[in-house]
Formats: sequence, C-alpha cells, structure tokens
Amino acid sequence: MKKVLLPLLFALPFLSGAQAPSAEKLIKYVKPIIGTQKMGHTYPGATVPFGMVQLSPDTDTLIYEINGKYNPDIYKYCAGYQYTDKTIVGFSHTHFSGTGHSDLGDFLVMPTTGVLQLNPGTADKPESGYRSAFSHENEVSEAGYYKVKLDDHNILAELTATNRVGFHQYTFPKSEQSHIILDLMAGLYNYENKDVWTFVRVENDTLITGYRQTNGWARTRTVYFAMTFSKPFYQYGSKNYSKKEVYKGFWGRFDQGKNFPEMAGKHLKAYFDFKTEEGEKIKMKFAISSVSTEGALKNLQTEIPHWNFDKTRKESQELWERELNKIAIQADNVEDKQNFYTAMYHAFINPTTFMDVDGSYRGLDQNVHKAEKFTNYTTFSLWDTYRALHPFFNLIQPKRNADMVQSMLAHYDQSVHKMLPVWSHYANENWCMIGYHSVSVIADAVIKGNAGFDANKALDACVMTARHKGFDGIDAYMQMGYVPDDKNSSSVSKTLEYAYDDWCIAQMAKKLNRMEIYEEFIKRSQNYKNVYDASIGFMRPKLSDGSFKKQFDVLQTHGQGFIEGNAWNYSLYVPQYPAEMIEMMGGKKRFVTHLDSLFSMELPDAFFAETEDITRDGIIGNYVHGNEPAHHVAYLYNWADQPWKTQERVRMILKKQYHPASDGLGGNDDCGQMSAWFIFSSLGFYPVAPGSEQYAIGSPSVKSAVLQLENGKTFSIEAQNQSDKNVYVQKILLNGQALNRLFINHSEIMAGGKITFVMGEKPVKKAR
Amino acid sequence: MKKVLLPLLFALPFLSGAQAPSAEKLIKYVKPIIGTQKMGHTYPGATVPFGMVQLSPDTDTLIYEINGKYNPDIYKYCAGYQYTDKTIVGFSHTHFSGTGHSDLGDFLVMPTTGVLQLNPGTADKPESGYRSAFSHENEVSEAGYYKVKLDDHNILAELTATNRVGFHQYTFPKSEQSHIILDLMAGLYNYENKDVWTFVRVENDTLITGYRQTNGWARTRTVYFAMTFSKPFYQYGSKNYSKKEVYKGFWGRFDQGKNFPEMAGKHLKAYFDFKTEEGEKIKMKFAISSVSTEGALKNLQTEIPHWNFDKTRKESQELWERELNKIAIQADNVEDKQNFYTAMYHAFINPTTFMDVDGSYRGLDQNVHKAEKFTNYTTFSLWDTYRALHPFFNLIQPKRNADMVQSMLAHYDQSVHKMLPVWSHYANENWCMIGYHSVSVIADAVIKGNAGFDANKALDACVMTARHKGFDGIDAYMQMGYVPDDKNSSSVSKTLEYAYDDWCIAQMAKKLNRMEIYEEFIKRSQNYKNVYDASIGFMRPKLSDGSFKKQFDVLQTHGQGFIEGNAWNYSLYVPQYPAEMIEMMGGKKRFVTHLDSLFSMELPDAFFAETEDITRDGIIGNYVHGNEPAHHVAYLYNWADQPWKTQERVRMILKKQYHPASDGLGGNDDCGQMSAWFIFSSLGFYPVAPGSEQYAIGSPSVKSAVLQLENGKTFSIEAQNQSDKNVYVQKILLNGQALNRLFINHSEIMAGGKITFVMGEKPVKKAR
Repeated sequence: MKKVLLPLLFALPFLSGAQAPSAEKLIKYVKPIIGTQKMGHTYPGATVPFGMVQLSPDTDTLIYEINGKYNPDIYKYCAGYQYTDKTIVGFSHTHFSGTGHSDLGDFLVMPTTGVLQLNPGTADKPESGYRSAFSHENEVSEAGYYKVKLDDHNILAELTATNRVGFHQYTFPKSEQSHIILDLMAGLYNYENKDVWTFVRVENDTLITGYRQTNGWARTRTVYFAMTFSKPFYQYGSKNYSKKEVYKGFWGRFDQGKNFPEMAGKHLKAYFDFKTEEGEKIKMKFAISSVSTEGALKNLQTEIPHWNFDKTRKESQELWERELNKIAIQADNVEDKQNFYTAMYHAFINPTTFMDVDGSYRGLDQNVHKAEKFTNYTTFSLWDTYRALHPFFNLIQPKRNADMVQSMLAHYDQSVHKMLPVWSHYANENWCMIGYHSVSVIADAVIKGNAGFDANKALDACVMTARHKGFDGIDAYMQMGYVPDDKNSSSVSKTLEYAYDDWCIAQMAKKLNRMEIYEEFIKRSQNYKNVYDASIGFMRPKLSDGSFKKQFDVLQTHGQGFIEGNAWNYSLYVPQYPAEMIEMMGGKKRFVTHLDSLFSMELPDAFFAETEDITRDGIIGNYVHGNEPAHHVAYLYNWADQPWKTQERVRMILKKQYHPASDGLGGNDDCGQMSAWFIFSSLGFYPVAPGSEQYAIGSPSVKSAVLQLENGKTFSIEAQNQSDKNVYVQKILLNGQALNRLFINHSEIMAGGKITFVMGEKPVKKAR
Repeated sequence: MKKVLLPLLFALPFLSGAQAPSAEKLIKYVKPIIGTQKMGHTYPGATVPFGMVQLSPDTDTLIYEINGKYNPDIYKYCAGYQYTDKTIVGFSHTHFSGTGHSDLGDFLVMPTTGVLQLNPGTADKPESGYRSAFSHENEVSEAGYYKVKLDDHNILAELTATNRVGFHQYTFPKSEQSHIILDLMAGLYNYENKDVWTFVRVENDTLITGYRQTNGWARTRTVYFAMTFSKPFYQYGSKNYSKKEVYKGFWGRFDQGKNFPEMAGKHLKAYFDFKTEEGEKIKMKFAISSVSTEGALKNLQTEIPHWNFDKTRKESQELWERELNKIAIQADNVEDKQNFYTAMYHAFINPTTFMDVDGSYRGLDQNVHKAEKFTNYTTFSLWDTYRALHPFFNLIQPKRNADMVQSMLAHYDQSVHKMLPVWSHYANENWCMIGYHSVSVIADAVIKGNAGFDANKALDACVMTARHKGFDGIDAYMQMGYVPDDKNSSSVSKTLEYAYDDWCIAQMAKKLNRMEIYEEFIKRSQNYKNVYDASIGFMRPKLSDGSFKKQFDVLQTHGQGFIEGNAWNYSLYVPQYPAEMIEMMGGKKRFVTHLDSLFSMELPDAFFAETEDITRDGIIGNYVHGNEPAHHVAYLYNWADQPWKTQERVRMILKKQYHPASDGLGGNDDCGQMSAWFIFSSLGFYPVAPGSEQYAIGSPSVKSAVLQLENGKTFSIEAQNQSDKNVYVQKILLNGQALNRLFINHSEIMAGGKITFVMGEKPVKKAR
C-alpha cells in the first residue's frame, strides 16, 4: 500500500503544475554567481529553465584578435561576465552557460545619464564610455532575477525574463539626459567583420524591431528582435561605424543619424533619449526570434502582455522553483544545498528553447520550419553533455530530453552533410570538438525507454552520421580501425570516442533488432584496442603504417593525439567495456595502480601552461575534473574490486571541485555537464556508459533525496550515518532488500521506491 | 447588332486563353535587341510578361568605383549588355529593363571548357578568364528565347524562362573539362562590399540551393535560389575571395574548397565539373525566390517539372503572343510593326512579379507576407512610369494595374516611413528620383474606374505620403507653397511635381466625396504658380526668403533647381492645368513661341556634357525625349489652338526617336515609359494628365489598330489615308459621329467601338 500511496501523494500536485506541498523554497539556494569567476564561464543574469533569452550583464566584450593575433584575454568572457571586474558594459540578451568558446551576447542594452556616449569605454576608465562602475554590494543575482546599481549613471537596473523575452526595469535619477543605448556591434567573441548586417526599424515612439546577422562561431546566424519601452522616447538616433561607409545610394538625401526610423548597415549603434524624474522607472521588454521581427513581436506580445515587472519576476522564479522541486534533498549544511541547487539550476539552462511561441524556428538549412508536437531546442554542446547531462535529463526531464532528440533529428533532416549535430547552436553547426556523440544521447534515450521519437529513423541517422567518410578521419577509421595520427589530429581521442559511440549504436540496433547494424558497430566498438600500446600501458597515437608514434609524452595533450586530456586520462576512456579495458591494461592490480597514480601524482608547472581550460583548481593529481574525458574515471575502481576508492575519490572531488562561490567551479561548466556530474555523484550513482541501463554506485553526499519522476512515481535516496567522514558505503538496500552489486538500473529507479545507503568511516574491503 | 457581335467574337478566344484566331504571329516583330546599344539600357535575354526572372547575357559587370571614384563606364551596363561589346561574361537571372541606375545581375552562370578559370577576365583578352568572345551572327534574341555561340568554349548557349525559373540549355563539345561556373560575386552596379553574405548548399549531385544578400541600390536585399542540372556533375568546388578571410571557426578542419556541400562567406564563387561528349546538352533550371530556398525549390518544381527546353520556350513565347495580341495593328512597313510590338514587349516587362507560386513574398519590413487575391509586383520606377505606362495598363492591363496598386498599398502598409513607393524593388525602397507619383498611379486607376482595391484606404495612403514632412522638402512646401532652393536641390522640379501629384489626390478625393481632402489638395495643386517668374517667362528656383535665385541658366539642369530637364522643358510641367499654365505664361501665342523654340533651337555642345541620360540622339532642338519631364509637351499645342503642331511633332518624335535596331531608343526605356509613349502616340492619343479621364488627341502612325479590352469589348482605331506625309488629322469620327474635340475619354474607349482618323498632308488650321 505504502508504495502505491506515496507516489500518488507526491505526484498529484506535480501534475497540476504546483509545487510539492511541504517543500521550503528551494530557489533561495540557487546562487547563479557560482562559476562566474575564472573558468566556470557561467553568467549571473536572468533566464528561465531552458529559456531562449539569457539576459545578463557583460563586464567586457573584447575583440577576438589584436593585430591579427588571438587575444588570450577573450577566453575569460565566454559568458560575458567576470566576477573580479569592476565595470559593466551593458546587458545583452543571449549567453552560453559554461562554454569554452563563445558567440552570442546579442543586443547589448545600456541605460545611461549625462552626455551621450556610444562607445563602451575602457574598464580602467569607465567614464570614457557608456559603461559603468558597479560593486557586488549593490548586486543581487537570483534564479530569474538580477539587480545592480550602475554607479556612474546612478541607475538601478533590474532584469528578469520569460522564455523569449527579457524584461528590464531601470530606475533613473532626475535627468534631462537619460539614454538607453542599443549597441548592435557589441557581442561575445567579437571581431572586426563579425557583424554581417544589421537592420532596425523604429516602428513608433515605443516600439523598435530589427535583426542582427553575424558570422562567428555560428557561421551564418541571424537573431531578430522586438523591443518596447514603457515610456515614449522624445528623440532617437543611430550611428554607422563602418570604416568605409557602405554604398549610400539615394539614402544620402536623408539625415539618417537622427529620428530616422529605418537603420541598416554593417556596424550600427542606436540610442533613445528620455527626460526622467527622480526615481522614475523606465521599463523595456526585449523579445528575440530566429524567424522574423514579426515572430519576435508575437513572442513579446504573447509572453508579457503587461508592464508588471514584479509579476514576471515572480512567474519566472516560480518556474525555477518547480524545476528545483524535482529533487528535494536534505543535507548537513547550507553550502551543500547551494552547491546542489545551483548545479540543478545550471543543468536546466541548456539546451535552450529555439522556436517562437507558434513553434516556428529557423533550421540548419536556413529555412523556417515548424516544430510539430515537440519543443525545438538548440545549444548542443554534445561532447560535454552526452556524458551526464542528457542521462540526467532521461532521469528527471525525460519529456524534454525526448524533445531534444527530436530537435537533433530535425537538425539531421536539415543537414546537407546528413549528420546529427556535433556542437550546434542557432541554426548552425559549429563543428567544435570531436566524436559523434548525438549517437550516445539517442542511444541512452532508446535504451532507457525514453524514445518519444521514431527510434528506427533515429538509428538510421546515427548510422549515416557514423559512416560519414568526409568527417574527421572516419574514412580511415572505417578502413583501418583507428584514426591515423599522421592524417588527423587528436587521433587517439577520436578513435576511442568513435569506438564508444559505435557501441552506443550497436546497443540501440540490438534493442531494435537491426542485427546487421549491430554486427557492424559492435565490431567497430572494439577499435579502442587498436590504439593501446601494451609495451607502455598507455593509449598511444598510431600512424598510417601501423606503427606507434615514436616521440610521445604521456603527460602532454597538445600534439600527442589527444584533446583536453593526456594519455594518463584518455587511456581510461573505454566506458563501454571497463572490465575488458582493465584486462587489456594488465589486470585489476596494475589498473588500480594507474588510477591511484593518476589521482596522486605531482605535475610539473609546465603542464598547466600547455593544458586547456584548467588551472590547479580543476585538477587532483593528474586527474582533470575541469575537462570532461575523465569524468567517469573515479567510478572505474568499482570494476577493479576496490569500490571504496571510487567512494572516497568521488567525495573528494565533490568537496574539492565545487563550492558555493564565484570561483566555485574548477573548470567550464560546459552547458551543465560539470553540474550534472555533481548532481549524480551527490545522489550516489553515475552513468559511466550512457547507452547502458546501468549507473555505477558511488558515495552519496546528501543525507537524503526524493526524486519526483515524470511518470508520477518517486524515488527516494537515504544515506544513513551520513557525514563528511562517513564516505564509505557499508551496505545498500533497494526497497529494503540488500543490493549486492555496484550498480543500479535505470528501470529500478523509474519504478519508484527507495535506495538506502548505510555509510561508515571505514571502507568495506571485499570483492564484488 | 454588329456592335454587340464584334466584341463577343473577339473576346471569347481571349477569355479561354487562346490567341485571336485570325492573327498572324506577332512575336516575330519583337526585337529585344532594340535599345541594347548606348542608352536604351534594355537587355536581349529571356523573360515572360512581367516575369520575376530576366535571364540575359551580361557583356560586362564593372565595378562602381575605381580608387574611390565613380566609374562613368558602369552606366552603360545598367542592363548588363552593350551591343557593341565583343564578349559575354555570362548569363545572370535578374535585370532591370531600361533603367538609368542599377542593381541585380544576380547569379551569373557561365559554361566553359578547358582549364577552370573563376575570374571573368578582360574584354580585350577574353582568354584571360571565363568570359567568351561572341558575334551577333551567332546570336538570336526573341521574346522568351535567346541563343548565342560562345566562341572561346565552343558552346552553344540557349536560354528561356518561365515566371520564376530560368531554363538554360548548353550544347557542349567533347571535353574532359567542361564546367558550369556560378559566380556569386558578379552583379550589376557592383562594388567591393556589395556582397553582404552568400550561402550555398549542394543538396545532391544535381541540386544546389542558396542565397545572395547584397547592399546596393536596394540597401538590404536577399535573393534565394534553387538550381538543378539535367546531368550529375562529377565534382564541384568553391572559392572564397574575401581579402581578409572571415572567421573560420572549426570549419578549418574541412577542405571547403572541393566537394564540400556547404559554402558560405562574403565573396564566393562555385563551379561544377562535367565530362561531355560532342554535342551533349547539359540543361539547367534556375529558380529564384524572395522568401527562402524552400520557396525557390517550390517555384522550380511547380513551373518546370520536366527537362523539355523546347516546350518551355514554346510556352514562354505563347505567353508573349497572347499579350501582344491585345493590340493588333496594321502598318505600312515591317519596321513600324517591329517598333510597335517591341514597345509592347518592353512595356510588358516591368513591374515584375515578386512572389512565389504560393503567393509568399518578402515585404519592405523584411518579413514574409502572403499576397491574398492579388499578384504582388516590384520594380516600380514611378517617376518614369506614372506618365504613360500605368495609364497604358489601365487601358490594356487593368487587372494587372489594380494588382500593382495593391502591391504599392502593401508596400505602404509595410513602410516604417508610412509612405507609398517612390522607386522600389525587391522589398526595398531606393528613394531614387523625386515626387510621390504612386499618387498619380492610384488616382488614375480610381478615376478610370479601375479600383480593384480599397479606394478610400488608398486615398489615406496618398494623403499620408503627401503630408510626410520628413520627406524631401514637403515640410517647407506645405508651409510656403514651394520647395525653397536654398534648402533642397531640384526645388522647382519638386514643387511642380508635388503640385501635379496633389491635383491627383484632389481628383480622387472628389470622386470619393472626401471633400476636406479635396480642398486641401486642390489648393496645393496651385503651387506651380509659386515658382513661375513672370519677368523671364520661366519656372525658376525660389529661395526661402521668397526671392528668386539670382544666378540662373535656363538651359542647364544641374544646380538650377531641376532634375533631368532644364527650365525650357520643366516650365511646361503643369499637366493638370495646361490652359491655366498657358495663360500664366502670357497666353497662347507666346506659349506657342516657347514650344516652337523648344523643338527648333540649337544647343551648344556644353549642354550635352552636362545633361544626364541623353545624347544628341535623344533630343530634338532642346526637347529632350530621352528624359521624361517633357513627354507630354508635344501634346500641349492642342491647348494653344494649334493641334496640327502636336500632330506633326508627335509624328516626328515617333520617327526620330524610335527605330528597330540596337541603337533604336533615344534614351533609357525606363521600365517601359519610353515604349508606352510610343504605343499611345502611335495609336493617336496620349494621357497628358494621368488622374484625368482624358487622352489628348495626337496623330496616329498606325493604319489601324484593334484593342482587345479585358472587359471583353474591342476598340478599333482606323487612320484613313495614312502615310508618312499625311500626318495631319483632317477629321475624327467616334463610332461614326464627328468628334469635335481634341480629346477622347477613357470611358469612351472602354465602351468599345471605333475611332476613325481621316488623315491628310495639310494641317487643318482652325481653332478648337
């Protein structure tokens, strides 16, 4: 009875869209500021779960190149905001969360007072431009709400958002010269000529529409907008910053600089002038669309048909509250809850909605499509997120994850390359990173019974992608069983990841009884063996002639056949066959030595100079948590009969790599992958091989957790005797029965019930 | 009985879409080559009546500026083709007909053999690039069909078209190196940076889609395309010509130059390689759209679902035949028929269709709209075409003209300036020339009972446009009654044309019983008086202080307050009130002296150096037929009691300004205005003041003509005793009754019937 009643009690309010009845407000534990310093690359502004608009302050918008050379400082500004900066340039409407490359930062808006300045000015001299000094004392960053005082202009700026609309509220001082600047040249990862075309119409004295077309990480990207003010401006203008003025034609007869309602050009800024009373609020709603200005206007009118900022803020925060309530945890201290719920927050930002309120969106083929019966998403950082984020969605957001797969299949349908996404955003494939990990996301959904899409069609798309000879060494890989290092960079990483992806395809094919495909890809999944050099016990780049690369450094990443991980880390990348890998590497004992060394060795300083994306903060020994290739590694001790080491490593990583402060993330959050690792590991299990039903058991750090599943059931986790010292699992009970294995199945969770971990301070050293 | 039977007999085959039964093929009289030399600016290629595609050879595509200075040679290439040129660069898909400024020339295609060359090369050394020598002996230019031998490549090129699709047929020699080049950088009135963005997808080995976005005369213009080959290419490639390569991102890992299916950048060319047998035909269909590549593909598949080139050619030519048959003339010699039917052909090219087969089109607001129950048109060269072309349409193409007005009203609805078109093309207003002559076109349709649109709404649009204070001196004009020359260039021309346009609004308002508007605008229509200087008997620039400009040259145009016409010509521009104007200018006698002098005076050479668009060919005395402002002038003798002078002048102009050869037009055809003048005048009457019911009687040059009216009736014109000497009208009978006036009403023609001119060699000198 109890088992039947419980889910009903919890599920009902959920299904009706309300919050769990007894829960305290969880939103208070969300600190969007976590990760905004150094390499976290998160942003502190306002967005709703999986929202299309990410309205956030930018503290700088640097230029990609200086005198033709890459500007290394730009990397800090992937999300536009660095916590240690002292000035804010403005508030722009689109941001990635946690990426290691960037784009976006569209439509930077800045309210100012005094003499009109259209240049941002410099950080050390904010008065040289429109930017403003600010201090964290005057800054509030919550899920769905951001507030800051702009000291130079004496303006209080508040931001909130719906899915497709950013809502600004600026409290001005008394001023005859109040301005709102729309800088259409500002952007993240900006460079000369990134702006391809800009078009703006001042429809009337409160409404402006237009678009910005850029050539950046997304090669061919256009974002349309509609913005509206709560108060009419009394004058407005624009400036064209093209070095060489484009063709003027017969527009020269107009004074286009002032009060001229149609602006167009390659490099444009616009401004709108007001006279304000002390404390006067000017509000602004700013909607975006991938389709048209008409679409943006419809989004605006549909999502916020009023001027009540507080109402929108409340609704936005209620959306967050509802998502956060999907997992209710108990923890010993507030910091653990802040880490956990901020991880939930960061996990629920990407992928982002990519369609108008009517379902229209621009596809990869640049045509306008309509999403029929699914929500179309973009921002697929798949090399990162296939590992834990999408498996997390299969657990706690299965409907959304199925829609994400639908979005990936739509991408495939629209792809002239006939490929599933690699790293895609805004109707573009940017080809960042390696592998064809869409395959893993799709297989994971299929295997876990979450195929709210045509699974056979999806399998075909996976197969087409994995056989694409033109793509990144696949041709050679198919012929030779590995990517030859003399033909292709990161050859070992690619070989290993292709082999894992191939295994995913095989699992799916097997489930769908497509045995020819199964045979082809199960064979390919063995290719990891082809880059293992038994003589040194490491994966190693192999050349076309079958010999291993001679010059080889197991510590370095660059030029060594790897990417974002050296041979120490990548040699452990056979998630599909941990047991076989351990055997290949000399058996369990030798393998444990490798693992122990990885976590404990001391690295030379030179290592850090040459390794991407990480600092000493993001590393434990030679284990790099700030990058993804080793995210499953701590769990591998389970396969070497030393699960207690998995347990202590996981707890160590949770402690060392996450803390609730601006510098609280040891590496890029990578669209939620780092956060998803945290959530899984905190709950006591982790998907070592997505595409499998199994989660490897770790060591929960929560005292308890209740998962509200979309099927109406609940799954509870209890960690008895939980403490910072009691990291070792003594005993596991699943629904009251002893669980004598080191994994739990997805279906066991989805059936609802309870897992109980009995914790202790001493490892239980017995073989599986 | 006869009067009832006749229209039925003629009308029936028409309504069923077939040709008039007894007519000979009229298409043989069409010589598209007329006007392709010097200033006619027509093109010899293939198009259908009012077709969206104008597929035509370009003999050069020059750059607008050389070292920052305007290149005067570019003017010759407004339509891409100059008859005296010896080489062809390629065949592009969009052309203006007869304009004095340019744009378009989109998607230049060139078939070649031998070593691949992607640059056009120079005219004096065609082997330096892909261009080819050709000779007129190997050239055929017909309505709807064009053929030429490309000597350098030994390829026979044939072109035909449907509304939205160009159909190419290339007969190759045997070659291992046959190419079809798609030059996406070529274009008319080209200049560096005109290409904003180009995007191409090779969908499969016979289908390519994409778009070209330019910043030219149209500031923000995008044309989408879909092209398909009858035979698969065996390889293909592209080249990016950006001086500074745009951001490469992670595309750098691909070899994008060869066999890579997605091309994008600012400056692109593509090529497709074939191996051909002797005499092998490769066909290509090329569709365009303003909406999307999807739209272009739909246009392609709908309009030409086969590979039968001859069938399409036949259908295209049948469309022309049907249009030409709307007026069946008898003339003394073949040249007269060639002149006449080529004028019909040129009159029926513009405005051009601007929507996909499903009615979708891109609007001025850059959004996609759907034309409901009308055909959307673009290419409105209104300063030219309001005079005779649109009145001609009201007579012989009333349905299309009403749709053109609908298109202008849609433009108004989409205009952020809340203005009707001035000079618009391809979802852009280019603001070329002066006045708000949409008003004249709309009034003419309303007054003539051809308002297949909401006339009251149209009137509102006219009023909004005419009151637009931000536009071109209207503010001052409304305050002071004239455009002050110290504030605005071409001040006299603007004042005069505004006054005429205002009269049009008044006429319409009166008919719609909107008397307040009538009063306002009938008053404005008198403003012509404000720029008349009685002391010299000429219109003259007036300054803000009310005084006339001191330095003033009645022969010059530039800087004298006029545009495309000097004081001699423009002083006669009061088409709404000829009698009052004559009175103002000192009475009939003095007026006739002015007119006589105009037609007979000798001009200094310096005049030609400084006057736009005309040579000695386009001028008779100081009467400039090659420009438009004096197009009504020969008819003004009617109001001065000397109609015989109208008769002889009109016949002289018909003879001197038009002949059936490449240099047969004395000035820009201006989207059909020159041709429409020819047609009206040949038939014996002309609309001096569009917006009025009346046509002024001239002297017909045809022996007879039968007009097939859309209302099913016919109107016949007979010129008894017609000859080159017998240019004087002795007597006029309308339906057998003497017509004792110098005008005929539109309604009299539309009622069907017959007008008989009895001609003679002596003028009949009696007062009206």
